Amino acid sequence: MAMNRVTKLFQPTAPIPKSLQNSQIIKSQRMMLEQGVIRATSTGLYTLLPLGMRALKKLENIVDRRMEQIGAQKILLPTLTSDKLWEQSGRLAEAKAGSELFLLEDRHKKRYILGPTHEEAMTELLAAGTRLSYRRLPLLLYQISNKYRDEPRPRYGLLRTREFVMKDLYSFDANEENALKTYQSVTESYEKIFQELGVKYVRVEGDSGMMGGSMSHEFHYPCEAGEERIIQCNSCKLPSNASLLDIPTTSCPHCHSTDISTMPGIEVGHTFILGTRYSQPMNATFIAADKSMQSLIMGCYGLGLSRILAASLEALSLPTELRWPLAIAPYKACIITPKHGSKEEAASSLTQGLYDLIDCQPGFKNDVIVDDRSNLSIGRRLTEARRIGYPLIIVIGKKAIEDIPRFEVFDLNNNQEFDWTDGSVVARLKEYCAHHE
Amino acid sequence: MAMNRVTKLFQPTAPIPKSLQNSQIIKSQRMMLEQGVIRATSTGLYTLLPLGMRALKKLENIVDRRMEQIGAQKILLPTLTSDKLWEQSGRLAEAKAGSELFLLEDRHKKRYILGPTHEEAMTELLAAGTRLSYRRLPLLLYQISNKYRDEPRPRYGLLRTREFVMKDLYSFDANEENALKTYQSVTESYEKIFQELGVKYVRVEGDSGMMGGSMSHEFHYPCEAGEERIIQCNSCKLPSNASLLDIPTTSCPHCHSTDISTMPGIEVGHTFILGTRYSQPMNATFIAADKSMQSLIMGCYGLGLSRILAASLEALSLPTELRWPLAIAPYKACIITPKHGSKEEAASSLTQGLYDLIDCQPGFKNDVIVDDRSNLSIGRRLTEARRIGYPLIIVIGKKAIEDIPRFEVFDLNNNQEFDWTDGSVVARLKEYCAHHE
Repeated sequence: MAMNRVTKLFQPTAPIPKSLQNSQIIKSQRMMLEQGVIRATSTGLYTLLPLGMRALKKLENIVDRRMEQIGAQKILLPTLTSDKLWEQSGRLAEAKAGSELFLLEDRHKKRYILGPTHEEAMTELLAAGTRLSYRRLPLLLYQISNKYRDEPRPRYGLLRTREFVMKDLYSFDANEENALKTYQSVTESYEKIFQELGVKYVRVEGDSGMMGGSMSHEFHYPCEAGEERIIQCNSCKLPSNASLLDIPTTSCPHCHSTDISTMPGIEVGHTFILGTRYSQPMNATFIAADKSMQSLIMGCYGLGLSRILAASLEALSLPTELRWPLAIAPYKACIITPKHGSKEEAASSLTQGLYDLIDCQPGFKNDVIVDDRSNLSIGRRLTEARRIGYPLIIVIGKKAIEDIPRFEVFDLNNNQEFDWTDGSVVARLKEYCAHHE
Repeated sequence: MAMNRVTKLFQPTAPIPKSLQNSQIIKSQRMMLEQGVIRATSTGLYTLLPLGMRALKKLENIVDRRMEQIGAQKILLPTLTSDKLWEQSGRLAEAKAGSELFLLEDRHKKRYILGPTHEEAMTELLAAGTRLSYRRLPLLLYQISNKYRDEPRPRYGLLRTREFVMKDLYSFDANEENALKTYQSVTESYEKIFQELGVKYVRVEGDSGMMGGSMSHEFHYPCEAGEERIIQCNSCKLPSNASLLDIPTTSCPHCHSTDISTMPGIEVGHTFILGTRYSQPMNATFIAADKSMQSLIMGCYGLGLSRILAASLEALSLPTELRWPLAIAPYKACIITPKHGSKEEAASSLTQGLYDLIDCQPGFKNDVIVDDRSNLSIGRRLTEARRIGYPLIIVIGKKAIEDIPRFEVFDLNNNQEFDWTDGSVVARLKEYCAHHE
């Protein structure tokens, strides 16, 4: 098996741009920049470098798999959205007033919006002569694509950018009751995604006003760097978003208990029941059982994928070391080889065997990397590997030349260290994975 | 196994927009629109519906796998590209003159280009203080992302759009000799991709002028709808692109034989050696063995993914039926169930077993769909399945209620028909796949 090698990994460490050298940057984002996971390209615009891209792709795969389970179908809408569509829904004036839209003209002076969200374009798919029978409902369509927002204050690295990767799903139902069932199914699926990532999250009631619907929830990662304020009620246990409340937040909006604590949160998902807010003005209908044409009842469900990536790092990381959810770590395991010229160099011959052994375990396929910079000391490479946060670091060091060779293993997410023998690697990896499920 | 079902598939058939009802639309594109594979959203802007999206995703996976084999690393650059970068490379004035760039301003009046290609942004990754050792070379970076071009005449459906999915790879080497080796390795990998798709292609020398480099090749699908003219030399057998030649094309530019024929071609890939065209003005350097800083020698390699999708359909399809490369067909097999109320309805009970049997064969996982519209006749559904072009159509019809039940199988890409018994399905599928490799 050809090995993934650190000497081949493009992981450039550029100086952090001056514009970011202030309080606007938070710990994990600084480390992502310093460790070559992302690169600051322009104000509020980031490049995902190979490590960051691997994580994003894993996250996309997790989402695709969960969507398949609930029968959601993936499509891809153009990013360039005619402003006429937004006129039709009545959102254009409102959106222009807030001026977070990127607008542009083509050579014929036709105006387009770089889609920040796609309610109009998705609704239009169901209008325009599509004769959809009630038997085909519910219909769930989603896409994963770049979204755009001309943020007045882009900041916190990938947390608040002007171009970001978002997964947006739209549901279409025949009536309110079915729409609620669909809403339940999608939000449960989102909870499964968050549970798979393993970062503590809270789900609170959201502000449905801006989308014009009747029900809404938000998903937050509780985290110091968060810009929202979450109320945790110690009595009824229901969390809520204090930022949405007009009243002073001295009590729980659910049970009115005053035994509450508040904490900052990062919003990572938002779900809405939209009702007929878009389907009615845009004439998106279905053929009911009685043959009448009726407006579709819609829902929309957003997950900020690049933001989830950044926010989970921010929530998990130590002040000087990144920590990744195992499910989206760029590589799950890093093997550190003996230093060239050291006593243990003889054990270098164990590298390929160890690599192959791990690579062929379920869940580790192509997920191992070797730090083969044998000119550097093991200590220095271990420090770097800890900073990048590979969940498992396996050192072929002094103990590897003992009679029964042992590897030193660092399980970063559980803050534990082990010695593994060659013969115990498979059993230990299974234990490790079981522990993480 | 939960079955993929046609009754659940979002495959809306909208009327073809008036703007497209003319000679600008070619046969496969009309069928893609009519069969609900894509949707025309706005001038030169298309939505990939579930069938189209499945094909694109398969193509992306093929590309990712081939790129991994040659050690290319995937990243993601922002689409919004500061016009300052293009000033630095000297391409801004030139590009503006051609005015195929989409330009926009942010709230602070800073100007951005919607990237049509990313030489500048990629080169910048290697500038700006990255101290890259010659030992790390060659370096191959690529992305798959939306690209933008304000086409004066968008046409031919997905073949010439204003927003399209492109895979662009950039290589960085220490010297010309190594750059040539890399060029060889990447273009060979591209040939493997084209071979995997199985559509006849030709590789010709390209015009390296526009990118400012020293060597270039183009990949074309020979096809009536093509806008390029390919010379096929019957003497030396080397093809060339007549559109690039200033001289009248009555002879082969390689061997000067006049025994030539010309044919139209669709460009689906383009590769260049760029030399130091971008690395020098943008100061992208590496540390040579003698410790001196030297300009990187670059190459760039584009594959139009949405165009490959469209062009392979155009090349393979019949006048009234789509044909897909097996490797990217949205579903490889479609099972048609007995009609409700027919004599053969008893055989409906075979559907799930047949589905599971095919689904668990290598290469068929989640690649089967059942046309479960049992209110429609088998004939009507067979006609539709042929139009969509599922490579294998398996009918549970009259022969399925014989003593030894048989399924009628239509192998569209080879224009053959078979009878398969329940017991022979596995062996026949293996034969089929072997035949296609």
